[in-house]
Amino acid sequence: MGQSGLRVRSAFSVGLYPSKSFPPSGYPVRFDKVFYNGENHYDIVTSKFNCTYSGVYVFSYQITVRNKPLRASLVVNGVRKVRSRDTLQGQDIDQASNLVILKLDVGDQVWVETLRDWNGVYSSSEDDSTFSGFLLYPD
Amino acid sequence: MGQSGLRVRSAFSVGLYPSKSFPPSGYPVRFDKVFYNGENHYDIVTSKFNCTYSGVYVFSYQITVRNKPLRASLVVNGVRKVRSRDTLQGQDIDQASNLVILKLDVGDQVWVETLRDWNGVYSSSEDDSTFSGFLLYPD
Amino acid sequence: MGQSGLRVRSAFSVGLYPSKSFPPSGYPVRFDKVFYNGENHYDIVTSKFNCTYSGVYVFSYQITVRNKPLRASLVVNGVRKVRSRDTLQGQDIDQASNLVILKLDVGDQVWVETLRDWNGVYSSSEDDSTFSGFLLYPD
Repeated sequence: MGQSGLRVRSAFSVGLYPSKSFPPSGYPVRFDKVFYNGENHYDIVTSKFNCTYSGVYVFSYQITVRNKPLRASLVVNGVRKVRSRDTLQGQDIDQASNLVILKLDVGDQVWVETLRDWNGVYSSSEDDSTFSGFLLYPD
Repeated sequence: MGQSGLRVRSAFSVGLYPSKSFPPSGYPVRFDKVFYNGENHYDIVTSKFNCTYSGVYVFSYQITVRNKPLRASLVVNGVRKVRSRDTLQGQDIDQASNLVILKLDVGDQVWVETLRDWNGVYSSSEDDSTFSGFLLYPD
Repeated sequence: MGQSGLRVRSAFSVGLYPSKSFPPSGYPVRFDKVFYNGENHYDIVTSKFNCTYSGVYVFSYQITVRNKPLRASLVVNGVRKVRSRDTLQGQDIDQASNLVILKLDVGDQVWVETLRDWNGVYSSSEDDSTFSGFLLYPD
């Protein structure tokens, strides 16, 4: 009885500190600014979310893009599941965003990666690039 | 006792296969790439989400736009509830996105539609256009 | 027994009526078009969300930007927690978006604010600027 959510919950929401603009491609983007990580399922060292409870999860990334084009992907266990591309002109700034719902098993790892040199991931004191996820329905 | 979510749940997350760029206007966008559809409440044939449990739902679309401007709408039973517009230059690429929370009744249908010839909906092997929704609070 | 969600829930989703384009900077953006506000935790008079149940919340804003650059922030009790920037050219239109998960206490207030004269917040009958939030996990 009572709130089921009290027992099985998993959520994280992280951003990039300004010095982390244009992180290296081909590696997990090292989101190091924590908005929420109550259960510590996002590992700040590896920059990966570790699935502790199997179930249905929602993931979102909202990446500020500036100066360069961007190709980004949500990666699950090394497989690029959802991709985004953003190309802009001159001094334009906008967000490359996506939101997806995925079924995960215990031990699955989820991160965001950029591809090759199309890496306009930007952050400053005036714009946050964010990566968030939460357990919607536990198995 | 146990997880309430085990009994009443509804979520879907779909995308567009590359061949579906610039789908016809005035019809539901035929999202045919399934990220999650565990309860089969998104009908891949009609391209509509069918509300099976009344309650409060979250919907999101994140549409890659390229080459043409875009006017898109989240449609509930034929009524355009939430609209987005995106206009870009030359070879620019970005996302037209929205997220909204709506109360639905059993039998309600929800889909995404583009308007007239402003239809820059794009997809390739490098960018996913997505449409997702989930039951937040059942009645 | 029963749905835990029936007892502790909090969600809102609001937009801007067309006449509210370019709302004044430094004040809460006065979202006045209600998509969902079942518990009335978003106060349409102050344009602020009032936290009634402590817990973990998801917030999203998806703001149509036109004509001017935009600097927007999600504000919690006067502190700018998450920021977005969008700069575009000529007649371009796109969305400045973000999504974040935050832990709130009872009495916390959350709103969206623009900064200085970088205020391209736009709305028309063809594009909705939205602000939404919901209680994910109650304490």
